[in-house]
Amino acid sequence: MTPDTAVREHFAIDLAQRAGELGLKYFRDLDSLTIESKGHQDMVSQADREVELFIRAAMKAAYPDDGIVGEEHASVTGSTGHVWVIDPIDGTANFVRGIPAWCVVIACAKDGDTVVGVIHEPSTGETFHCRKGGGAFLNGKPIRASVVTSLTEGSVGTGFSNRAEMQNVATLIRSLIAEGGVFFRNASGALMLAYVAAGRLLGYVEEHMNAWDCLAGMLLVEEAGGTIVKPDPRTVLEKGTLVICAGNGVFAQIRDLCVEPFKL
Amino acid sequence: MTPDTAVREHFAIDLAQRAGELGLKYFRDLDSLTIESKGHQDMVSQADREVELFIRAAMKAAYPDDGIVGEEHASVTGSTGHVWVIDPIDGTANFVRGIPAWCVVIACAKDGDTVVGVIHEPSTGETFHCRKGGGAFLNGKPIRASVVTSLTEGSVGTGFSNRAEMQNVATLIRSLIAEGGVFFRNASGALMLAYVAAGRLLGYVEEHMNAWDCLAGMLLVEEAGGTIVKPDPRTVLEKGTLVICAGNGVFAQIRDLCVEPFKL
Repeated sequence: MTPDTAVREHFAIDLAQRAGELGLKYFRDLDSLTIESKGHQDMVSQADREVELFIRAAMKAAYPDDGIVGEEHASVTGSTGHVWVIDPIDGTANFVRGIPAWCVVIACAKDGDTVVGVIHEPSTGETFHCRKGGGAFLNGKPIRASVVTSLTEGSVGTGFSNRAEMQNVATLIRSLIAEGGVFFRNASGALMLAYVAAGRLLGYVEEHMNAWDCLAGMLLVEEAGGTIVKPDPRTVLEKGTLVICAGNGVFAQIRDLCVEPFKL
Repeated sequence: MTPDTAVREHFAIDLAQRAGELGLKYFRDLDSLTIESKGHQDMVSQADREVELFIRAAMKAAYPDDGIVGEEHASVTGSTGHVWVIDPIDGTANFVRGIPAWCVVIACAKDGDTVVGVIHEPSTGETFHCRKGGGAFLNGKPIRASVVTSLTEGSVGTGFSNRAEMQNVATLIRSLIAEGGVFFRNASGALMLAYVAAGRLLGYVEEHMNAWDCLAGMLLVEEAGGTIVKPDPRTVLEKGTLVICAGNGVFAQIRDLCVEPFKL
């Protein structure tokens, strides 16, 4: 926990909340929003682009020599070893339909390792935030991953995309139910990861997530005392990663459920 | 659309919103909440009981001769043909874990047919409401079920309980994905039904729901121009029903997906 990381965390919290306000303006005026779609799971709206530009401008002003990787615009190469990783609106399919479960996601990585993670949900005003070694928080209050030891004591979040074989998630759900578990999918992967950090979900699994969707949430889960499958710091920013995160008491069981569908 | 039904609708809107305020007080103080659990999917909290008592007291004062059916307390037999149907907190598993997706559900049935439906989500301040023949509304603004004709253009909500064979939902999800569709489960069936009425989800299917979980939402979908499988008015209050609701353009496709898993 360095002072620099603490400053970056507070910068990211403030920025995510301001970006969320901007996103809410578009969300409340959905009828006039321009949406491009290559299918329901692969949409981008004017709001995604504008919110990301807003975030990038603030980063460029505060940290001009850092790199930036975002979902909607080209990557910026930096010189400090720090790279900001942005998903302006995680849960775009929700956003464009009017479902309030979407969030602004900001992570900061140093040499490939995530050191700051912030997930802000404007509709509820909840900001999940952490820095490496500093613990995990929701609006400033400490949060902990679940400590239960049985899959029957909560729900497991999941998601899927066209970057993996989609039927694998149906196989996973069948195995989870066979173990007495319950699945959950509110269509915002980052928000579900934040829920794992807060102990609201037992865990979250997805065969492949992009860095901007998962890095903030994975650090939150670790800082909340949970367990994750570590991404490869050499490739995660560019190629994304498998995601398995859970409270310690159920992590092994949840990972076991993934072996067959994800061919681990 | 009778004046009496309009009065009942406004009574139910006001009552659901006041009950939601009471629920929020418990939700914000979860650490001190008493919870009884017979498994994650079958929980009841002090908040469920107290919110239902609050709703019942207001109903008894305003409509002393009506019947009442609620999730948490014994049914009251009335003499007017009107029966109020209450789920004080739909999404209890969310509520007790701190997930903000839960709602207060109030329906009114006349001789077994639903005539008023209100679903209020306190965390977002959204109240979905309707009366038979009067159209469907979100906070006073008209809403419409989806008009799309392809399962690839949105998500389909689903849920399950121990009142049906749980693996059937995994079969359903496999079939939905095979047709290019996407599943959604935020663990509040009533809220997902309201989302269908608002065109946010293409449809919602569940093999069995209790009357208090589904009647308000099913009327909302009908009044929003969608299609439902009609429940049997002679048995639905006591025994619940199969639920298939969707926008007109995808209803037949969604119903077809249910034939195998639900043995229709």
